[in-house]
Amino acid sequence: MIPPREKWSTKFNEWFRDVIARAEVYDYRYPVKGVGIWPPYGMKIRNNVISIIKKLLDETGHEEVLFPMLIPEDILRKESEHIRKFEEEVFWVTYGGKRKLERRLALRPTSETAIMEMWKLWIKDHTDLPFRIYQIVNIFRYETKATQPMIRLREVTTFKEAHTAHATMEDAEKQVRTAIEIYKKFFDELCIPYMISRRPEWDKFAGAVYTIAFDTLMPDGRALQIGTVHNLGQNFSRAFEVTYLKPDGTHEYVYTTSYGISERVIAALIGIHGDDHGLVLPYNVAPIQVVIVPIPYKESEEEVFSLCNKVLEALRSIGLRVHLDDRDDVTPGEKFYYWELKGVPLRIEIGPRDVAQKCVTVSRRDTLERIIVKVDEIKEEIPKILEDMRNDMRRRARKWLEEHTFFTQNLEEAVKIIEDRRGVVVTPWCGNTDCGLSIEDNVNGRILGTPLDMDVDVKGMKCIMCNKDAKTVIRISKTY
Amino acid sequence: MIPPREKWSTKFNEWFRDVIARAEVYDYRYPVKGVGIWPPYGMKIRNNVISIIKKLLDETGHEEVLFPMLIPEDILRKESEHIRKFEEEVFWVTYGGKRKLERRLALRPTSETAIMEMWKLWIKDHTDLPFRIYQIVNIFRYETKATQPMIRLREVTTFKEAHTAHATMEDAEKQVRTAIEIYKKFFDELCIPYMISRRPEWDKFAGAVYTIAFDTLMPDGRALQIGTVHNLGQNFSRAFEVTYLKPDGTHEYVYTTSYGISERVIAALIGIHGDDHGLVLPYNVAPIQVVIVPIPYKESEEEVFSLCNKVLEALRSIGLRVHLDDRDDVTPGEKFYYWELKGVPLRIEIGPRDVAQKCVTVSRRDTLERIIVKVDEIKEEIPKILEDMRNDMRRRARKWLEEHTFFTQNLEEAVKIIEDRRGVVVTPWCGNTDCGLSIEDNVNGRILGTPLDMDVDVKGMKCIMCNKDAKTVIRISKTY
Repeated sequence: MIPPREKWSTKFNEWFRDVIARAEVYDYRYPVKGVGIWPPYGMKIRNNVISIIKKLLDETGHEEVLFPMLIPEDILRKESEHIRKFEEEVFWVTYGGKRKLERRLALRPTSETAIMEMWKLWIKDHTDLPFRIYQIVNIFRYETKATQPMIRLREVTTFKEAHTAHATMEDAEKQVRTAIEIYKKFFDELCIPYMISRRPEWDKFAGAVYTIAFDTLMPDGRALQIGTVHNLGQNFSRAFEVTYLKPDGTHEYVYTTSYGISERVIAALIGIHGDDHGLVLPYNVAPIQVVIVPIPYKESEEEVFSLCNKVLEALRSIGLRVHLDDRDDVTPGEKFYYWELKGVPLRIEIGPRDVAQKCVTVSRRDTLERIIVKVDEIKEEIPKILEDMRNDMRRRARKWLEEHTFFTQNLEEAVKIIEDRRGVVVTPWCGNTDCGLSIEDNVNGRILGTPLDMDVDVKGMKCIMCNKDAKTVIRISKTY
Repeated sequence: MIPPREKWSTKFNEWFRDVIARAEVYDYRYPVKGVGIWPPYGMKIRNNVISIIKKLLDETGHEEVLFPMLIPEDILRKESEHIRKFEEEVFWVTYGGKRKLERRLALRPTSETAIMEMWKLWIKDHTDLPFRIYQIVNIFRYETKATQPMIRLREVTTFKEAHTAHATMEDAEKQVRTAIEIYKKFFDELCIPYMISRRPEWDKFAGAVYTIAFDTLMPDGRALQIGTVHNLGQNFSRAFEVTYLKPDGTHEYVYTTSYGISERVIAALIGIHGDDHGLVLPYNVAPIQVVIVPIPYKESEEEVFSLCNKVLEALRSIGLRVHLDDRDDVTPGEKFYYWELKGVPLRIEIGPRDVAQKCVTVSRRDTLERIIVKVDEIKEEIPKILEDMRNDMRRRARKWLEEHTFFTQNLEEAVKIIEDRRGVVVTPWCGNTDCGLSIEDNVNGRILGTPLDMDVDVKGMKCIMCNKDAKTVIRISKTY
């Protein structure tokens, strides 16, 4: 009795746009390409997701800050690799009122340059390090590709960017590992399965020494990048002259890292767990965790509502976000339909039989499974069911990703898997850039990079393209 | 033994810039005019202030949303009064990468137009009303006057704007009154004294039927606008064609209101309560509410630290934000100085004598008053002292404003009060615009408007300018 996933699996794009609109998560009808609105329900999901990442960052020594949105052109240009990438996709402010500005101001595409400009003033001494900050801001990219709600935007409204500075490369490396651990916990909290890959050289962040990315796999068989961690080495600190005084009295450039996530995380959450009925939300991000629907009959109305209120109070008293849907101009069936669309994890139905048996009927949104719970045990049982549901969601999604990951050493087979959008190919590679680009051309997909979460011994394996000795395996997929 | 306020009272501007920089509330060294950075400590104050206003809005039926930052020129131009005012002070995005945009995009100066554009789609029926939303966003104004940190900015980072739609003008009026009540509570929470005035016609919000403003008085005798509430009538709904279906089957334009506050609130908080030692924060916005400073002597170190930790745990257990400053390379005196600068409401000193007497010595930041509290009573006493301090701060600030408000019917006296920056003048006015503008010219100050929080019977009074019968009294002051 699992809810259908026909539209979800066959027409995912259409399903996604339809569901975020009807469930009022994101309104994409604003008359500027690639920007959208968070209406109240979506905003609550967004804020719950933000709370989770903030907590993880606060617990690990990061401090929240807020930097300006405007970056003067000369500052954006200081790191040459960085601007080379962003030059084509930066929005420029050129006028203030009717006056032409003396220098153009970029809408931040990311904040490394603005932050470095201030770190020059903030960081002086080795005792100032490590330095860890983050902010949650809007960023802008003039995307020329087809834009897509929450996934490819011109205004990314929810960019969490962390920036750190360190005394040594080792410490920066350690921070990269910490960042990876933070993101793993974060995605686990949201039940989003992930692949961790070191991006190939040609696909790293502009100005980075290397980039490690988290990708997930969407129902349409395309990988979605949902988080990146960059080791920037001294590239930015040299360009911006950010140095610190070492104990021995000499100065050295700091080593920096940065790592970010965006509302793509919410797109992944919705895409991966949804079904043809609508959203399916894990309880920790659900604006409403439990909805109570009375099923009154004429003679029993009073008892039914009395039990509904009792259950409402009991669940509120343990801190759950509960809603009693007591509308009298809507049938219970319409209510079921509405709250399923909204992804509320648990529905509690209360009718005369429940009153008589001192029970309630609980329905899990993910499986539509019905569970009878004694009224007396509701405070213990409901949190357990919510936690079970979340664990099951995480497990199922993880399994789905594994089932859509294929190891092959055969190019034709790789081409076929990608062409059929069956998911991710793992295959050996010699490490040569030309060969890598050839593979991307041939399979008509992107190399996500070398898996960091997979143990593969490539001894004896040959590159899928040139047949020379493989140096590593790589993940390949269609991407967003 | 009240802390000195010499610099604060005589060189307020310099004091303000110095204190926000040294206390690390706001960094104004970013190389773009009129924009600044919230470093970690300031960010925490900001977030605490935001939590207070969010709670007040959530409790009164407002829902949080997030609208795009970019507003296309044609949409910004739809309401003609609105654009007339903002035309001179809007930043324009004209390029995406190297491509010139087909239509210019404004950085939102405020969001009425963007929101109306969507309400056209969202609001259909009388049952959709009232509609109440808010967002906390960055807004941009190309200020040509001298900019000032947190007070006159080109990027306002913390604009809380609420927008509401109603079926009738009466309901919109009611919402205006509700908004005023919300802001009164908000400013009371922050111990900021306020004057509520209906702005004169020539100073209302561009597109409003009328504007009600909250002003406070800063230590330099200038009024600072810290909140505004606008009744927009049908001005915007007509321009954007936002109508609703009435129960009788006809359509009518909705009535709208909007009301906003910004980081000026935090500037007021800091300016009004500070002294020559630095910030003085009410406990509800203080990032650290209590700091514990050990005063160890050689033989008693262990006992002193043991008591410090005991007090730390006790206060944490009741939910207070407490910090134990156990640095051993800094003298207690330096610690006192540092935490006073940061505005921590209470300092607890613990030395051998305290250990012996099972007491601690508590110092209030506002008065430097020292209070001996028994260790056993700490969980009850500290919250009381915090609350007392906040009540005293509110009372003193209110009194200060009252002492700097002068009623006069004599123009020369009014001129002198404003010239000497002694504060706010209250005086009778005939209601005529020319007369009003003349008054502003003569006193070299601004008319804040008609007090809504003062009962004055103007019968028999004459206009300070033309000597005709007064229609009302008005507040006049130098302003920011």
